[in-house]
Amino acid sequence: MLGRTYDDQVCSAARTLEVVGERWTLLIVRDVLLGIVRFDGLLASLGIARNVLSDRLTTLVAHGVVERVAYQQHPPRYEYRPTAAGRDLAVVVVALMQWGDRHVPGADGPPRTALHAPCGHELVACLRCGDCGAPAGPGEVVIRSNRG
Amino acid sequence: MLGRTYDDQVCSAARTLEVVGERWTLLIVRDVLLGIVRFDGLLASLGIARNVLSDRLTTLVAHGVVERVAYQQHPPRYEYRPTAAGRDLAVVVVALMQWGDRHVPGADGPPRTALHAPCGHELVACLRCGDCGAPAGPGEVVIRSNRG
Repeated sequence: MLGRTYDDQVCSAARTLEVVGERWTLLIVRDVLLGIVRFDGLLASLGIARNVLSDRLTTLVAHGVVERVAYQQHPPRYEYRPTAAGRDLAVVVVALMQWGDRHVPGADGPPRTALHAPCGHELVACLRCGDCGAPAGPGEVVIRSNRG
Repeated sequence: MLGRTYDDQVCSAARTLEVVGERWTLLIVRDVLLGIVRFDGLLASLGIARNVLSDRLTTLVAHGVVERVAYQQHPPRYEYRPTAAGRDLAVVVVALMQWGDRHVPGADGPPRTALHAPCGHELVACLRCGDCGAPAGPGEVVIRSNRG
């Protein structure tokens, strides 16, 4: 992997941030998950320079977060569709949104709400116990090292 | 807020990233949640320049993610303890870790595991339905705009 920032970190969060930790990248992932999958749509949504968007998309394609799919042949035009790995970032994106809603709220309330498609109720990003299924409360999270 | 990157974005994820989106900041939050709360401990864990760490901690204190608490008077020394808002970032940090474990795994397996303190079982970052309590499966997440 070229240009690694967190090279000496033995940490899966650091490895994830090598893929999605650059400025704008997680907002590009947000947009792709929202269905904004064409270059010009992403440019309009994000208001960033073309070369920055192009660079970030290249990284996301290289790491299998989005796939580049031709939607037109003459001239060639591409969409950047989320892969399964990309859709798996929804919990990261929604967790960032909901933290912002709670701790740096905007004047007009939450701009977006995540919903459970089968039933239409709101989804909450949480740490869910694999045994009892309950969400961990504040102060109930312990992170254990597996390296002795 | 000074130095905003995502100024034109009406998005709570963007507001969160204004606080924790700079390089290294989420790994500082990770360490503080792991109990590494002193400047020299963070320097050793992260291997970054003192001025970068100092700058990031100043931002985190200013936004109420950590609080600076004196643990020694002569000479003055401080700890950077997570606030309730800081502990609330655990879901973001663990979601990043678990995505890395699944999609960019290291050779030696997951370096860290998040556990539910009351029962000791593993915690999984997920989007949990506020109604039925089930975690949303792939493709079951819809993000609705609340701005008409």
